[in-house]
Amino acid sequence: MERNPCPLCYPADETLLWQGAEYRVIAVSEPGYPGYCRVIWNRHVQEMSQLASAERHRLMDAICAVEAVLLSLLQPITLNLASLGNQVPHLHWHIIPRFTDDPCYPAAIWAEPKRPAPARAIDPETLRVGITRALLGLHHL
Amino acid sequence: MERNPCPLCYPADETLLWQGAEYRVIAVSEPGYPGYCRVIWNRHVQEMSQLASAERHRLMDAICAVEAVLLSLLQPITLNLASLGNQVPHLHWHIIPRFTDDPCYPAAIWAEPKRPAPARAIDPETLRVGITRALLGLHHL
Repeated sequence: MERNPCPLCYPADETLLWQGAEYRVIAVSEPGYPGYCRVIWNRHVQEMSQLASAERHRLMDAICAVEAVLLSLLQPITLNLASLGNQVPHLHWHIIPRFTDDPCYPAAIWAEPKRPAPARAIDPETLRVGITRALLGLHHL
Repeated sequence: MERNPCPLCYPADETLLWQGAEYRVIAVSEPGYPGYCRVIWNRHVQEMSQLASAERHRLMDAICAVEAVLLSLLQPITLNLASLGNQVPHLHWHIIPRFTDDPCYPAAIWAEPKRPAPARAIDPETLRVGITRALLGLHHL
């Protein structure tokens, strides 16, 4: 057994919005970024290129389904998608609605904040229902 | 005609590594990040979720082919993938090899740099040949 087990293989305190066989979707609590979600591939792999092509397509379809729900519910100016894995080398995608008054806009959310977080928020249950409906609608589920 | 034409619809000074009908790959010159590439969808769309599912799959396959070439040529500790579009709302993906001694590691490259750029580099021609070979190998080309 590893001394430091992977925090995405052995998760604690995740706010689950969807749990599937291949991936799950969680809500990320980050002040100033309502609707911030992560899509986590359940199996421990590091890079997107290590997935089989069909797995990668299913994952990207799920990411885009979540993106479309967030665009519709929150009407952000844009959506940021990112797979970094610098801190946790287990494949996971950040899906981040962006607003012109959010702390870092127009820089990436990892840049130095320019302004305080605005009060905008979204009810987690609304998010969960929207994402569940969208992912149930994907042909492969 | 727009007063400020989209810089990815009307590109200037791009270092092209691959030009295809749907997308192109360019080398990004960013000190400390050798092998940094962008994959740009040629048609003007803003978000990944606006592509047809098959288009999105082909784009993600291309991104992963570039990722695999960079992993093989540079042996980075990880690869970062990101579609932000905060500054230029035309779909493009950042593909960034990361090293433990790069300016921002383990933070995202958009964070405050922690150290100077190391001297590591890659010959652009090696990159172009590797990426061309990988993309020619994709079934849909």
